[in-house]
Formats: sequence, C-alpha cells, structure tokens
Amino acid sequence: MIQLQGILPPLTTPFDTQGYLDLSRLSQNVERYNDQGLAGYVALGSNGEAVHLSPGERIEVIAHIKRAATPQHKIIAGINELSTRAAIHATRAAADVGADIALVVTPYFYKAAMTAEVLSHFFQAVADASPIPIFIYNVPQNTGVVIDAATIAALAAHENIVGLKDSAGGMGALADTLRLVPQAFQVFVGNGGILYPALAMGARGAVLAVACVAPRACVDLYEAVQAGDHAKARDLQNRLSPLAHLVTAGLGVAGLKAALDLVGYPSGLPCPPLLPLNEANKEKVKSVLRTSGLFSAME
Amino acid sequence: MIQLQGILPPLTTPFDTQGYLDLSRLSQNVERYNDQGLAGYVALGSNGEAVHLSPGERIEVIAHIKRAATPQHKIIAGINELSTRAAIHATRAAADVGADIALVVTPYFYKAAMTAEVLSHFFQAVADASPIPIFIYNVPQNTGVVIDAATIAALAAHENIVGLKDSAGGMGALADTLRLVPQAFQVFVGNGGILYPALAMGARGAVLAVACVAPRACVDLYEAVQAGDHAKARDLQNRLSPLAHLVTAGLGVAGLKAALDLVGYPSGLPCPPLLPLNEANKEKVKSVLRTSGLFSAME
Amino acid sequence: MIQLQGILPPLTTPFDTQGYLDLSRLSQNVERYNDQGLAGYVALGSNGEAVHLSPGERIEVIAHIKRAATPQHKIIAGINELSTRAAIHATRAAADVGADIALVVTPYFYKAAMTAEVLSHFFQAVADASPIPIFIYNVPQNTGVVIDAATIAALAAHENIVGLKDSAGGMGALADTLRLVPQAFQVFVGNGGILYPALAMGARGAVLAVACVAPRACVDLYEAVQAGDHAKARDLQNRLSPLAHLVTAGLGVAGLKAALDLVGYPSGLPCPPLLPLNEANKEKVKSVLRTSGLFSAME
Amino acid sequence: MIQLQGILPPLTTPFDTQGYLDLSRLSQNVERYNDQGLAGYVALGSNGEAVHLSPGERIEVIAHIKRAATPQHKIIAGINELSTRAAIHATRAAADVGADIALVVTPYFYKAAMTAEVLSHFFQAVADASPIPIFIYNVPQNTGVVIDAATIAALAAHENIVGLKDSAGGMGALADTLRLVPQAFQVFVGNGGILYPALAMGARGAVLAVACVAPRACVDLYEAVQAGDHAKARDLQNRLSPLAHLVTAGLGVAGLKAALDLVGYPSGLPCPPLLPLNEANKEKVKSVLRTSGLFSAME
Repeated sequence: MIQLQGILPPLTTPFDTQGYLDLSRLSQNVERYNDQGLAGYVALGSNGEAVHLSPGERIEVIAHIKRAATPQHKIIAGINELSTRAAIHATRAAADVGADIALVVTPYFYKAAMTAEVLSHFFQAVADASPIPIFIYNVPQNTGVVIDAATIAALAAHENIVGLKDSAGGMGALADTLRLVPQAFQVFVGNGGILYPALAMGARGAVLAVACVAPRACVDLYEAVQAGDHAKARDLQNRLSPLAHLVTAGLGVAGLKAALDLVGYPSGLPCPPLLPLNEANKEKVKSVLRTSGLFSAME
Repeated sequence: MIQLQGILPPLTTPFDTQGYLDLSRLSQNVERYNDQGLAGYVALGSNGEAVHLSPGERIEVIAHIKRAATPQHKIIAGINELSTRAAIHATRAAADVGADIALVVTPYFYKAAMTAEVLSHFFQAVADASPIPIFIYNVPQNTGVVIDAATIAALAAHENIVGLKDSAGGMGALADTLRLVPQAFQVFVGNGGILYPALAMGARGAVLAVACVAPRACVDLYEAVQAGDHAKARDLQNRLSPLAHLVTAGLGVAGLKAALDLVGYPSGLPCPPLLPLNEANKEKVKSVLRTSGLFSAME
Repeated sequence: MIQLQGILPPLTTPFDTQGYLDLSRLSQNVERYNDQGLAGYVALGSNGEAVHLSPGERIEVIAHIKRAATPQHKIIAGINELSTRAAIHATRAAADVGADIALVVTPYFYKAAMTAEVLSHFFQAVADASPIPIFIYNVPQNTGVVIDAATIAALAAHENIVGLKDSAGGMGALADTLRLVPQAFQVFVGNGGILYPALAMGARGAVLAVACVAPRACVDLYEAVQAGDHAKARDLQNRLSPLAHLVTAGLGVAGLKAALDLVGYPSGLPCPPLLPLNEANKEKVKSVLRTSGLFSAME
Repeated sequence: MIQLQGILPPLTTPFDTQGYLDLSRLSQNVERYNDQGLAGYVALGSNGEAVHLSPGERIEVIAHIKRAATPQHKIIAGINELSTRAAIHATRAAADVGADIALVVTPYFYKAAMTAEVLSHFFQAVADASPIPIFIYNVPQNTGVVIDAATIAALAAHENIVGLKDSAGGMGALADTLRLVPQAFQVFVGNGGILYPALAMGARGAVLAVACVAPRACVDLYEAVQAGDHAKARDLQNRLSPLAHLVTAGLGVAGLKAALDLVGYPSGLPCPPLLPLNEANKEKVKSVLRTSGLFSAME
C-alpha cells in the first residue's frame, strides 16, 4: 500500500493569455518543483481550478504532471464531481493516466442532503469501484459540507480508503480524527495556518496552497517537527502564516497565481468568473512575500 | 420580449430502475401538466438533478420537455456551471433545442471569491453571449452564495438579463429587490413557504418544487392574488406550506420524487449519492399530502 | 384578556449629556406619540437599551412611560434576563409599576443549551409566576437563539402566554407560527422590512424600530391592510423599508436615535459601548429620511 | 506586573438543593484544588454561571474563592456585563474583594454593532478605570461576537490590558494572535480540545472546563510541553479531548457539574433555565470519565 508523508503542493493550472491550457508551462513548473523535497503533487485540487476545466482537459493536466514528475513523486488526482457515477468515471480516468491516489471531494450541491449516511455510501461506492486508493477531501469553505471525525473513522475501515485531506481548518476536529482513525490511515492537513500544530498533533503531512509558493519552507517545517525541533517549526509557521492566509482565504486562486508569478512558477491568470488581482492586491502580495523573510531575492 | 407570469414547476428528471434517463416518462408527465394552468416549465432546476447528468443528457431533457409542452408553455432551462465558458456553452446548447429562457445559477465553488463584482462580470458575460434572455438564479441553500438586491438591480439594466428566480427564502431581501428593479424585470419567487406574501409584494410568479406536486393549488393561489381574494390566497398558503417544506428543506429531491409517485407524476428514484426515502419518511409524505386537503383521492 | 392589535414603537431610552436617564424627555416623547394612532408602547425592548440600565433604572423607565401614556395605550415591558429567577423578579417588578404585558426574551448566554425543552420550561416557569400575561420575544440577531414555530405553538396553550414578538425576519417561519398557533394568540412582527407581508399573512400588528421614527406611516400601512387596500400598503412598505433597514441592521440604536433627533423625538446618544454616529452616517440618515417622502418638513 | 502561566480551572458555582449559593462547598472544592499544581482560579467564567447570579452573589463568590485559595494561586474574576459602565463597576468590586485580574468578556447584545472600533473603545475604557489588570475574553460560542487578532494586538499596547483568554477554538486565529502580540502579553487558550497544539504554538497556559474535572492531567500536559516531551503531551491530549468536548459543547454546565460530582468536587445542579442531565447523559459522563484512563477510582 502507498505510504505517503511530507508536503505536497496542490498545483495550479497554467493558462495562456487566450485562456487555453498552457501544458508546457505546467511541465516546467513541475520540473522546478522536483528538487524541492516534496513528497508528490496534487493535480486538480481546489487550487487547480478543476471546476473550470472540461473532463478532457482534466485528464491532460493529470497526465502532464505525471510525466514531468520524478518516479519518487506520488501523484494525487483531485476528483470534483457531484454524482457518484461521475466520481467513479473520473477516478478511473485519473488512474488510467497514472494517478497514484484519488482525492475525492464530498459532493456538495444538495447540501442539506449530505448526511453522514449519504457521504458514507458515496465514499464506499467510489472506493469499491476505484482501481487506485482514495483519500477523502473535506473542504467546507468551498463545499459548504462537513464530513465529521466519526464518519471518517468508520470509512477508514475500507481497504481502499486510505487517507484524508482536511482543509476545514478546525484543529479540534482534526485532532479528533487523528485520535479515532487507525494508525495506518494517512491524515494530511490542508490549511497552512495550522501546519505546525497539525504535524505536532500527528498529521502525516500537508497539502497546502502556500507550499506551491514556498515549498522549501514547508518542507523545512515538516523536517523540523520530525527532528523534534519545535522552536524552529514554530518560527517557520510564523513566517508562513501571513502568506498562507493571503493565497487562500485572503485573495484566493488569483492571489496564489500572482504570488507564483513573483517567485518563479508562473501560471497565468485564473479562469473567469475569477478575476485577476487589481494593482493594490498585487502590491499586498509583494509585501507579504517580502516580509516573510523566505525569499531572499525579494528583500 | 418574453413576458412571463404565473406558476412554473421545476420538473424532476425521471430515471428507470437501472438509473438511466426515462425520457418517455418525462414526456408523459409534461403532457399531464399541460392542462394545469401553468405558465411553463423549468428544465434542470435544482430539483431536476442537472448536477447528476452529463452535458448530453441535459440537452436531451430540455429537448424532450420542449417537445412535450404546448407552444403556450415557455421553457426555462437551468444552467448550472462553475466557469463562465461552460455557462456560455450550456446556454447556447439549451437555446439550440428550444429553451426560451436560461436560468443561470451563480457560480459556487470559490465561494469567498464570489463578490458582487465577480458575479456582475459573470452574468454580463453570459448575457452578452447568450442567444436567449437570461434569468439570474439565487439559491444559497444549495450554492452557499448570495447575490444581493443592489447587484441584481444593477444587472437588470442589461437588455438580455430579464428576470430572477429567488429561492433564498428571505422575504425582506426579495422585497428590496422588487423595490429596486425596473417594472419590466421579472421576479419569480422560488420558495413555496412564502408564495402568497411574495406575490402580494409584487412578484410576477413562482418556480416551486411544490408546484410539481400540487400545480393546481399553486395556480389557484396565484389567481386569487390577481383577483384580490387575499383570504383565499392565505388559506391556500396554509395548505401548501407543510408540503412545500417537506419536498424541499425537509426531505429534498427524494421526498419530492416520492410525493410525485403518489400523486401521479412518477419519476423514479434520485441519482446517487442521493438516497431514496426510508419507510418512515414515505409515511410522512403520505400523511402531509393527506392532511393538506388538496388531494381528494388521498383522503 | 388583553387583546392587542396595531402598531407599537419600541421606545428608545433618552440619556442626558452626562449619560444619566433623561426621564422628562422620555415623558415628552410619549406625549407626542399619544396622538399618532399607536396601540401602545414597548418599554425596554431591544432598542430601549435595557441591557445598559440597572434594575432600578429599568423600573423608572417603565413607570414613566406608563404615566405619560393615555389609558388606551397598553404598556409592554421588555424582560431581558438570563436566569429564570431574574426573569420572574423583573416581570413582577414591571407589573408593579403598571405594565400590561411582559415581553420576555429567550435566555441567550448558554446558546448551545437553549434547546426547545429548555426554552419551554423557561417560558412556562415565568408565565406561571407572572401576575401579567407574557409575550415570547424571538430576536436571534441579538440573542443568537431561535425559538421555533412548533415550540411557540405548544407554549401558546399556556393561559398566561398570550403572544409573540417575532423579530427574526423570516417570513416563512412567521407564516408557520401563524398557521400553528390558536386564533387568539397574538403574533406581532418585529421586522419593518416585512411589515406588509406579515400583516397580509395574518399578524395582529407590529413592534418596529421604524415605528418610533415614522409612527403615522406604519399605522397607515396597518389600516390599509385592514381596509383591503393592498396597493397602498405595498407603496408604504416600499417607502418604509430603506428607513427600517437603516435604523436596525444598518446603523442600530445609534442610527435610530439620530433619526429620532431629526424628526422630533430626541433621546440623546446611546450608552457606551455603543458609539454615536459619525458625520457620514448622520448624512445617510438624513438622506434616507428625505427620500422616503414621509417627512414633508425634510424635503 | 503579574506574570501568569499554567493551568487555571474556571470554577463552577455550587448551589444547594433550594437553588441558593452553597459557599461552604465552594470553599471546600477550592481547598481540594489547592494541591493540584494549578496556577490560580477563574471565578465567574462562563462555567461559573455569573449570568445566573445577582451582583451581590457574584462578589461573594469571588471573595470566598480568594479566601480559600493559597496566596500562590492567582484569582481571575470574570466580568460579564453589557454596558461599559457596568463592566467598570464590576471590575472595581472584584478588585475590592481581592481579584488579581479581571477577565472581561466582549459585550454581546448588540452583536451587529460590536465592530473592532466599538470593542477597542470598550476595552480601553474598562482598562483605564480598572484598579487591576485586565484580560480580554473571547468566547463567541456564548456571545456570538468575535474579537480578531489585529484588534487584540492593538489593545495589547495598553499597559493595563495584559492578556487574553481565547475560547473560540480556532487554532489558526490563536496562532495569528500569538504572532502579533508582544512577548509579554499573556495568551491563554480556553478550549480543551486544542490544549496541546495551543501550548506548542506558544500559549502561556489555559483556562479550561476540563481542568475542573481533571486538573492533574491538564497540569501534566502543560509540564510535558515545558519539558519538551511532546509524545506525552499528545497522549494526554487524546485522553482529555473526549471529556473536554463532553463538559463544554456536548453537555454544557450541567454536564460539567455532573462530572464534578463523580470525581469529588460536588457543586450541585445548574440554575434554571439550565436543566439537570437526564439519566442517559449521566451514564455518558460516567463512561467518558472511565474510558479516559485518568480516574483510577472509576475503572
């Protein structure tokens, strides 16, 4: 069974100035990430704009990331579908082009209907049909749906449900999940503002927008916790937090892409309806990058 | 320009026991609805399970409804897409198969980014490109996104943005919208629990799940308000409200479909991940239908 | 039993420039209100700043309002306490100085504990002990606690629980309450933005901040509904709504007091921690008063 | 200046079977706590039912705790008032009977008005007038009001505002506060489910309901973090979490008091409107105490 740990960036999807996929730039970015100490890559996570791509484009993105990555880097493919049927199809298609793990988001249109029972049936059905292992993806800030610790723990008994990306940001709920799941179940935190506390509490690793911008600092923090150097981890957390806020809740995908342009992983503008940053917000991104002390070229 | 008023049901989408589209049943249901006094039909609204269908299936559903409807019944096609590009494509495809109006939902994945500015750009871009007029669709219980009265009023100046379906359920906000938009802008309420107050306050009509189950009672209520018979309208509201709650917030699409089976518009089970009703909830549906006094055959 | 109907203003509490109660001004305001067609007065509602007064001051406020009112004006005393014991004491004290009805807010500190069962016990205990009839006060925007329609309907069976002020602003829930309670139970709406729809749906009357500012227009709207003149009621609603929003959710007690200064019911500044309006917001109040068309002296 | 660190329990307030204060039992409990390694006591925190006591009773509670505590135990007095004036009076009265620090809750009735500006003025005014230093108390689950990290950091510049109890439970926001405040500012976490992560991130200590029940385990966890034994701290966190949830969000004050009865700090029933636990919930408390492995007498 795949055992994953460490830091993975949820790669953004580059578009050219006409709004078409820029796959060569995607490959170049991955090649640059390859020597940053990352455990793998998430294709088509929330920051990958899966919801702005056609099914065919999604497959191309996964395939290109797979080809550009080294064999040591695991590929997690985001599955963002609203029906069980479509989630199964997308999972199979991702496996076909080399994804190692499918990161399956909770369905989210009929929010009131997304009870623990419905979510359990959904993840079991997808896991039964998937040729690759799946991670549960909990991201209520985008979905408005929460899957709770007890439901996750029950699903962890399924042999093809092997992990969780929890982006909810609630440390208490994450600690509950860590307490309730089996040791082998792989819990990743998806919120850069609590990276150090989550690792201290026992998370295996993290999938973080801020890890696209500052991969090395996230890896250093991870390694500091592994080495028991909590003071260093805390210091890195304090440097990363303002940037992590800015490229998620603060300015979203447009902010993340603007930051990536500045630090050498250019990926163009977000797709409409998302709007590019205005000048004031671009300055904010520069300022936060500069004051983090993590980018010597910017100081 | 199309001037719509009155009651429209957001048709459910029938599936057979294997989970495939049952288009002949869809046509039969529409034919039965044709003499109920309805102003038209909404294909692929929230209750139509658009999110469970492929793009091709969506077009088939619209086309079949169009063919089964009389020429007097207007066809509103729900457009539930997360990118501007996909929303434009879907609007054009709906127009091609005969939709009269496109009911375009607010995008809803990057919730924090869905500011008034982003929503304005989105609806203008879709309206610019659409060959048919569009209605704005505000349904925060499913999307987690709200479009406010001032933004709607500004968009109402666009010649191809001609109406609104407001399912938010907030009477105060709906009254604000009615006050701020031009007289010609067509505001429909999408919440059966406030049908009478919304019509009294000036809404043109309604798109209601409960109108799938009890079309005649909704039409009667509408006509009572037109005739100034407020006491009758209030009485019908009181009969409809418990049923309206049950087939929306209460038991959702599964509850709506179960009620339709009982009153003669059968449409099968909802698609997974939605689960069918258990026996206790089926009994609840029967009981609420019975005590409404609106279905003589059930008493 | 007291049968109340029509419009009641939730009187603000005047303070002098040192922050002490200005009871003579309170009496003068009441005398000015006496010929505006109002059904009575609410002392110490949410807008009366009960939470800023000592128990002794609260009693003085009720007593002064009672003395300044005509015998035809009923006095409703707000009871804003967090323990059952304190609510009972305050209700008795209000009755002692002439209150006709106690308007008892749901307790609101231990929000998670305020289940239907706890709220039922609370209102029954207060009603059992109160020498005067009580109204339930539902105001979640201040309390964070909601009492639902079914619980209210069950409490309506108590002979000393005779009415409700519902300020939640949810027309659907208010309609449910009106459907479920006995005919004799007196439901008042507390949200100026839905005054007309609530009266159309069957509310007995209203307790509204905007009725402090524009008592005559609110009374006219009420009488228009009684007379079946729905077009007039709708027009008045459209004039009142922007003002109603401004003096509640928009600018709060400070906004309400500023508006009252401008229309001849001066009551000074709110108590700290509330801050007085800045100049920009004062201008906004003037502008909204002017454009309402309800204050000829201001046009 | 007082420098506090470590664990403090927010003491419950004992009542006798008639509902009167049982001050002798309060003193006995404090005497039992005196040798548990605690840094001090919080009188009249959220779990102390301040909102159910008269002003006179509140003073008695503080005074008795002060007398029963050793001189090494610092006394923090909860100040739960809705006006600036009342908060100042209560702070002075608490100081008069020996409180060392006043823990001042954000005012919470006019929620929409509790902007950063209003909260800043409020805390400055209380701090200016208080004879003892104050802590800011952020407890949105009870108040519905949040004070954000930037506002707290600005207030930390006031020489009489020396600390914070943050019970919001958001680890990300708490980390932001810790990053932004001066080193000398004393941040205590108030949420037992994140005790270890909060201490790892730099909190000085904690004020926790679960510390009333299991003071020694909380102190052990604190000391483990001080000693760099993170594995032990994590293990204790996992033992404490289920109990911490149960006596706060789960069963509230009634659950906390029931647990205290079982472990030897009896304090009677909560005041109405709070209801005592039913039998099923009492069993739940027993079961959670037993499975924690922290109470050898119960296994």
